[in-house]
Amino acid sequence: MLEWINGTQGRGVKLDPVMPRLLSLSLAAVCGACAHAPMQVEDIGSFHISGRQVTLSGLPITEVTLTAGAPPVRLDPNGDFQTGQMYVQYVRLAAPKKSLPILMWHGGGLTGVTWETTPDGRPGWQAFFLKRGYDLYVSDAVERGRASWSRYPEIYSSPPFFLAGKDAWELFRIGPPGSYSSEPAARKIFESGRFPAAAFDQFRKQAVPRWATNDEPTQAAYHQLVERVGPCIIIVHSSGSNFAYQAALRRPDLVRAVVAIEPSGAPDPGTVDVARVKGVAHLTVWGDNTERSAFWQRMMPGETRYRQALSASGARADAIDLPKHGIRGNTHMLMMDSNSDEIAALIEDWLVRSGVTR
Amino acid sequence: MLEWINGTQGRGVKLDPVMPRLLSLSLAAVCGACAHAPMQVEDIGSFHISGRQVTLSGLPITEVTLTAGAPPVRLDPNGDFQTGQMYVQYVRLAAPKKSLPILMWHGGGLTGVTWETTPDGRPGWQAFFLKRGYDLYVSDAVERGRASWSRYPEIYSSPPFFLAGKDAWELFRIGPPGSYSSEPAARKIFESGRFPAAAFDQFRKQAVPRWATNDEPTQAAYHQLVERVGPCIIIVHSSGSNFAYQAALRRPDLVRAVVAIEPSGAPDPGTVDVARVKGVAHLTVWGDNTERSAFWQRMMPGETRYRQALSASGARADAIDLPKHGIRGNTHMLMMDSNSDEIAALIEDWLVRSGVTR
Repeated sequence: MLEWINGTQGRGVKLDPVMPRLLSLSLAAVCGACAHAPMQVEDIGSFHISGRQVTLSGLPITEVTLTAGAPPVRLDPNGDFQTGQMYVQYVRLAAPKKSLPILMWHGGGLTGVTWETTPDGRPGWQAFFLKRGYDLYVSDAVERGRASWSRYPEIYSSPPFFLAGKDAWELFRIGPPGSYSSEPAARKIFESGRFPAAAFDQFRKQAVPRWATNDEPTQAAYHQLVERVGPCIIIVHSSGSNFAYQAALRRPDLVRAVVAIEPSGAPDPGTVDVARVKGVAHLTVWGDNTERSAFWQRMMPGETRYRQALSASGARADAIDLPKHGIRGNTHMLMMDSNSDEIAALIEDWLVRSGVTR
Repeated sequence: MLEWINGTQGRGVKLDPVMPRLLSLSLAAVCGACAHAPMQVEDIGSFHISGRQVTLSGLPITEVTLTAGAPPVRLDPNGDFQTGQMYVQYVRLAAPKKSLPILMWHGGGLTGVTWETTPDGRPGWQAFFLKRGYDLYVSDAVERGRASWSRYPEIYSSPPFFLAGKDAWELFRIGPPGSYSSEPAARKIFESGRFPAAAFDQFRKQAVPRWATNDEPTQAAYHQLVERVGPCIIIVHSSGSNFAYQAALRRPDLVRAVVAIEPSGAPDPGTVDVARVKGVAHLTVWGDNTERSAFWQRMMPGETRYRQALSASGARADAIDLPKHGIRGNTHMLMMDSNSDEIAALIEDWLVRSGVTR
């Protein structure tokens, strides 16, 4: 299951050290007072974007028993269906304090729930950034959550796959290889690990099936979303990252910053025009224990190479490697870790200091 | 596909006339001013509820090609998975004006998106009731949307089914039988039909696959939700209705009202203790053109029989048959129809007048 998180890249250069100027980031930046004031919300709503109609024909009529003991019902699976759409939920403030909205894009096998309340019930990054004064758009990409999914092999070309508990535990670096157990009490997290491990099974309820064959409609939907929203910041997790990097390359006039949380994919700089995004600010955030994961050792160099190419072309391309700042124990799901608000504050501080948003 | 919306019931008595006292309902009850004031939101968040862990073993390792041209990846489908959970998103106001929160439960093959922005971009009932001062809980039931779904036949016992455009068009009474076309411009809605028909394909993007075999975990999750939230009002659509009626029968101390929008299922009054819910207020709302749909002619009597039994046991059990009040053209999706705010106002007026909420 090692390729679960991987998008398309992962190549062989070393992770560079974090930018020295980031050492000054203040962990005291979490605003205690503003976190308790009510939000003045103008509008909560949603829309679906992108997608197309497909028409199925020639499929046999089937019979389904809807209620035990009832006669079966004839079902005709033929006709018109929508496919390839994405779901987007927005919360717009009456008077946003910040000049740009944030789009939050989830990782593989997950949905926009990633950004909501943490599995152990603390406010998530959606709430954090709303309270900091940003309008917010949280999406479920094509094939998952409220975006829905389509039958296979007639519409999607492949079947889905499902990530088991052990694989999530190890890939998301909750604990070291071999430390997962079906019994919650028997699981061993990393020393100083910050994931709310007692809520791991609760977190697993957020998991959705994943397909390997939907990158193209997913990217198309993200492109449409950027065009619909306009100038924006993207905060993206894991395998979502390559979609965000590509969105910036396509519309550097609209995507003002890409904040990649533990990205598992980035463009090969030899195949894209990196100079196009020299005006886009890039930030990468890494958790702890990456050196104890063969998967992450294999994934990180590709992102590093892209970030180095961004820097060489004149773009701001920073990284926060949290352990190098003495922040230990963060996992792949650092928006859910016990210090999730601190990390959100680091990111928000970077957005303001780097001039991305007023 | 006629049984798409049906839960478990649908029996043979005539729909009774609406309660005369409801004739006084005021369509002018939509508050123009309050709809434009910002909401003071204390908290936006979500949780998953109910569900259990299942362990799969003995399934063969498969190979998946994640990227065209890349070598295939070995995937082990065995291990622990969560199943049977429900997703719930809440918006809690800083100072709710009303004494009870509202739970909004969707119908078959749909998700909580039902209650959000309408397909043509108007504020939905979620926004309407928030602006009227209710805390709100919108859920995605087991098997759909952000609740996720499980593989079959290993966990779910059956495959899903998918509702085609023509079937949705007819079952939801957008237009008469035979009036659907793959070509949007060629579709013919009912005379004075109120569904935003130009956004029908946009609405279809909200559709999710449906299983016939998940009623039990779905009901269990709804029961848990009621216990978690406490005293509440349920607004429920279509096939969700039977879950709501059962929730009231189980916890009449917590469920203070059930507002069933075009219910397609109700308990057989001979099989439940109707007297238990004599303190629970019930309201049913019907749209137009039900007499032109064989499906709805077959579904409505079961609900009528249940409502009559409620009345006989001393419960408040009202119905608003909109055409009988001169409100024509409403479809099965009346929370999306052009007069959706007017209907929401009728419901809210009923909640207040019947003493359900202060």
